[in-house]
Amino acid sequence: MTYCVGLRLREGAVFLSDTRTNAGLDNISSYRKMFTFEDPGERVIVIMTAGSLSVTQTALAKLQEAIDDPEATADSSIMLAGSMLHVAELIGNALAEVRADVDRRLGQPTGASMIVAGQRRGGILRMFLVYPEGNFIEATEDTPFLQIGEHKYGKPILDRTMRYDSTLEEGEKAVLLSMDSTLRSNLSVGMPLDLTVLRAGECRIDRQRRIEPGDADFRRISDAWSKALRQSFAKVRI
Amino acid sequence: MTYCVGLRLREGAVFLSDTRTNAGLDNISSYRKMFTFEDPGERVIVIMTAGSLSVTQTALAKLQEAIDDPEATADSSIMLAGSMLHVAELIGNALAEVRADVDRRLGQPTGASMIVAGQRRGGILRMFLVYPEGNFIEATEDTPFLQIGEHKYGKPILDRTMRYDSTLEEGEKAVLLSMDSTLRSNLSVGMPLDLTVLRAGECRIDRQRRIEPGDADFRRISDAWSKALRQSFAKVRI
Repeated sequence: MTYCVGLRLREGAVFLSDTRTNAGLDNISSYRKMFTFEDPGERVIVIMTAGSLSVTQTALAKLQEAIDDPEATADSSIMLAGSMLHVAELIGNALAEVRADVDRRLGQPTGASMIVAGQRRGGILRMFLVYPEGNFIEATEDTPFLQIGEHKYGKPILDRTMRYDSTLEEGEKAVLLSMDSTLRSNLSVGMPLDLTVLRAGECRIDRQRRIEPGDADFRRISDAWSKALRQSFAKVRI
Repeated sequence: MTYCVGLRLREGAVFLSDTRTNAGLDNISSYRKMFTFEDPGERVIVIMTAGSLSVTQTALAKLQEAIDDPEATADSSIMLAGSMLHVAELIGNALAEVRADVDRRLGQPTGASMIVAGQRRGGILRMFLVYPEGNFIEATEDTPFLQIGEHKYGKPILDRTMRYDSTLEEGEKAVLLSMDSTLRSNLSVGMPLDLTVLRAGECRIDRQRRIEPGDADFRRISDAWSKALRQSFAKVRI
């Protein structure tokens, strides 16, 4: 399984993904699910992936190949596309093509989805959830977060704390606590984690960090939240 | 959809169920999903249901018919069965039989599950989750709660607050807050709610209450919890 969450706030965007991949319960590995593409000051794109690894890896490899192609154009490379909407379309097309090919080989449908976000100079920061068929939806001021994978355990805290006007610091805290709830409830979501923060208008990665198992900061936040929750629970009178 | 949760604590048991039933998104009704059978001081049984209404209603009707049968025996009536284990077996058999019949008619598998709990005089209070095939698992001191239906949104709070030694009052608070998180995140789980409390050893219903939409107590608890959560969130430092 997988859990990836992206926040699209007024100040910028926050991304968090786990790394656990499993083929059955007895074949568990660690694979990065967050990928960043950056031409600092010009363009930054973050992609997070969920679902069949053979689909998402191949789709990303094709996107990278198109970027590296010396004859790349605005219609082939996500680093040249004229808008973030067009970036989402290129990624949606790559995902849908690879998925259709894998489906045909397997004789059954596979699932794979992506969160795609970024900004190009002169454009605005946008975030999309790309479905397995290549169509997509966009995060809005009303619903400033998108999730893929095992999204349910970590949704209540986002519902209650995140608004479009939340700060990037609040956003970082919210995604970490949302992930913490998911890690506790679903063993197929696992450390290490990848965190990325973009600041609106900068068109570059503001901050990026891998959170390893046993990370002291993450442990402290998780413990503080558990304690605060138990105190809150004790305070509520029925 | 549905959300039902049962706690099996040292002091007794707490049950909470919603009432929303839907056939598609445009056909929504309200049906009770909690059923109690009581011979006060002698025996009490609580059943909560999730899944295909045609399966669970018919299974319950058959169980009731067996109870009312003047020739009922310990092998046919859950009100005469010699142990709570045997009660769970009778209910599992009824569920599996009806489901197999409905599956055959539909030409595809239906889903239906139940939480079954209770106590007979001289026995101990036990709680089971009965699967669609009629097999079951039991709540234990390690995992003192069972859920059916849309269980994910409401699980983190139970994981963090409920222990076998939690009080019935804490238990009631926990199931209400667990339901509150679920109601917020899944529109196909809806008010009114049914709450039942059993006290271990009494073999009777200790307390039973229907919580209607707009219930002032539920609203107050829900608001207090939202406020406490936001305060806790603000307190945690990253």
